[in-house]
Amino acid sequence: MSELNPDGIPTDVPGWRAGATFAGIKTYGVGKLDLGILASDSPCVVAATFTKNRFRSAAVEVNVEHLVNGKARAVVVNSGCANSSTGARGMDDGRRMAALVGTKLGIPADEVLVGSTGVIGVFLPMDKIESGVAAIELSPSAGMDFARAITTTDTHPKHGSVRFGQYTLAGCCKGAAMIHPNMATMLAYLVTDAPVDLEFLRAELREAVNQTFNLVAIDTDTSPSDTVLLFAKDPDGASDIIKTGHPLEDEFRDAVRTMCRHLCREIARDGEGSTRMIEATVKGAVNDLEARHLARLVTTSYLLKSAVHGADPNWGRISAIIGRSEVAFDEGNVSIDLCGYRVFEAGSPTEFDATVVSSAMRTDEVPIVIDLGEGNATATAWGCDLTPEYVHLNADYTT
Amino acid sequence: MSELNPDGIPTDVPGWRAGATFAGIKTYGVGKLDLGILASDSPCVVAATFTKNRFRSAAVEVNVEHLVNGKARAVVVNSGCANSSTGARGMDDGRRMAALVGTKLGIPADEVLVGSTGVIGVFLPMDKIESGVAAIELSPSAGMDFARAITTTDTHPKHGSVRFGQYTLAGCCKGAAMIHPNMATMLAYLVTDAPVDLEFLRAELREAVNQTFNLVAIDTDTSPSDTVLLFAKDPDGASDIIKTGHPLEDEFRDAVRTMCRHLCREIARDGEGSTRMIEATVKGAVNDLEARHLARLVTTSYLLKSAVHGADPNWGRISAIIGRSEVAFDEGNVSIDLCGYRVFEAGSPTEFDATVVSSAMRTDEVPIVIDLGEGNATATAWGCDLTPEYVHLNADYTT
Repeated sequence: MSELNPDGIPTDVPGWRAGATFAGIKTYGVGKLDLGILASDSPCVVAATFTKNRFRSAAVEVNVEHLVNGKARAVVVNSGCANSSTGARGMDDGRRMAALVGTKLGIPADEVLVGSTGVIGVFLPMDKIESGVAAIELSPSAGMDFARAITTTDTHPKHGSVRFGQYTLAGCCKGAAMIHPNMATMLAYLVTDAPVDLEFLRAELREAVNQTFNLVAIDTDTSPSDTVLLFAKDPDGASDIIKTGHPLEDEFRDAVRTMCRHLCREIARDGEGSTRMIEATVKGAVNDLEARHLARLVTTSYLLKSAVHGADPNWGRISAIIGRSEVAFDEGNVSIDLCGYRVFEAGSPTEFDATVVSSAMRTDEVPIVIDLGEGNATATAWGCDLTPEYVHLNADYTT
Repeated sequence: MSELNPDGIPTDVPGWRAGATFAGIKTYGVGKLDLGILASDSPCVVAATFTKNRFRSAAVEVNVEHLVNGKARAVVVNSGCANSSTGARGMDDGRRMAALVGTKLGIPADEVLVGSTGVIGVFLPMDKIESGVAAIELSPSAGMDFARAITTTDTHPKHGSVRFGQYTLAGCCKGAAMIHPNMATMLAYLVTDAPVDLEFLRAELREAVNQTFNLVAIDTDTSPSDTVLLFAKDPDGASDIIKTGHPLEDEFRDAVRTMCRHLCREIARDGEGSTRMIEATVKGAVNDLEARHLARLVTTSYLLKSAVHGADPNWGRISAIIGRSEVAFDEGNVSIDLCGYRVFEAGSPTEFDATVVSSAMRTDEVPIVIDLGEGNATATAWGCDLTPEYVHLNADYTT
């Protein structure tokens, strides 16, 4: 697996600049920055995955328009307002936000992508966006400001970088609630200075997202804003393009997945109100789809998330989840491990010491392993415990 | 609609007796009773719906065995232990529990149905079951003791009765968490002194459950124990059997649905830790299936449940749910009403006073109405707010 630098930031990638400001849109969260720009000095190709929520945010719609040719070289993001369920006016606002940045950078508006995250159903304050864009100064070292500007209820910015061959891949993301991605998650931006074939880039991102972002859940609420963008150097005219068969093919693939996995774990760790991460692994499933379905179901159960919060080794909640899932299994072949302790095997409870397992659960990461004993497919999903604090945070978000 | 008597109890139905005791199985919850028997003096036919969770409890499996001919006349239920995920030993224990009661009542063991609710993965304490069954005295007025004995974390017993023609239909149920029924819910027992054709009884229960119990959700966790039993007088030899075309057909149907709806609302009101009931109605769906799917999705969203707890009119969470649902809709035709206030219409937010709507939400019942504007199908689902108390209750259930 590629070696991850958890301190890496998007501007660690040569040729990328960033900047951010406090435009006065966000009234909560860490860091007062709420408007950021990340831009490349040279042309790029972009692979993107967007939410499957059919009430898609205006930002997602604008990005789909701008990515028809797969090219763009900047992204502008505000936090505090999702510009979602805002109708035609929302679309106009999203396009104008891109145009303002295009003018500032001297590039066409459709080379600029947009992101908006925060409250749904509220219009963008375009006066603040306009003065904010004007105020931002881009620098080749301000990647952390961008990572901070895109956060909402996140307790810290989420970022990292990976080296492969002579190139760098870096990324950042945000997300702490309304996290139950379907094809993508909240906002994640990955950039690399490697020239990559666009079709290859798209295929790699799609599979990486399936194995990572699509398996994070804080709740069961899929956001209308979910977006993952992966920028690479435009391969036009490059002599050494990364694609299938290139010597760096495997290293590049590994770099993308390492980066995505890192950002997912960062999201799960920082789930709203959470105190522990849950890492649910399903083994022995008949196929990948079933393994993923069950792993994700485990991380989204109200009862299991509550039990993990209380370090309660109540594994009956896990067998109940398997039972209500859609995976193939025979009760007599199923086993369940909680924090490394076998608690259920061959259709019956094992004799384990509840006090010992409960102690083991009082930690930052609670691993759950289910072996269905049916086939060879495996999947891992990430989530977090459900806490009173999650309820407090979401009980009065707008009022 | 039939007139409901919310004070009604199962023994209000002529010919039914009940009794309960504290056998020492349950260590929590209201009322110390944890073992109850409900029995008819004469033969009955029984319609039943059981959980679709494939890790079915031993009690469910035993009932399936005993109901092959559709006849039974007693049910024995313990709370505090679900006898689920307990393998072959659990099946033996369930069969023995039925046999003990059969011997006590002088009827065959397969005329006795069983119910077990509580912690999953723990074996039934058969010594306590045996001495408990021996200690129970049946009386024609102890229906409330039975209703109390079947509760776990419920804050009060749930029961009621309805009159139709010269007959009575009464029922009781339990349930406060792991409530996300799939074809049935937790434990609900309905009895009537009317002689009813068995096939007709089964069809009526199936449809009533689809419209009621299958639309209650406290969380997203479908229990392995879900059971609804509807006992009617055995029609063998009766001269006036209720079935299709009988003068009381409609009244009987209405009585069953009124009773089921009442018990569902009781469950939703008493969801673990809840302070408000959510009643989600979907109108204008293309078919019943889609209407039910969306209504249920609304009552199971972590974010919406949290917002209702805080009386936060954050309707963007509702549009996000519609977007991630599988129902047919056109954003421009959708409207959303929250506590009677129109908050979203024709693809855009309305100008509503958030303070006024928030005040309206500070009540026992929060109605949410979504009109999809696609067709004529309608459904209502019931749920409750998500509270810090729910997490506390489930963070240390077994330890």
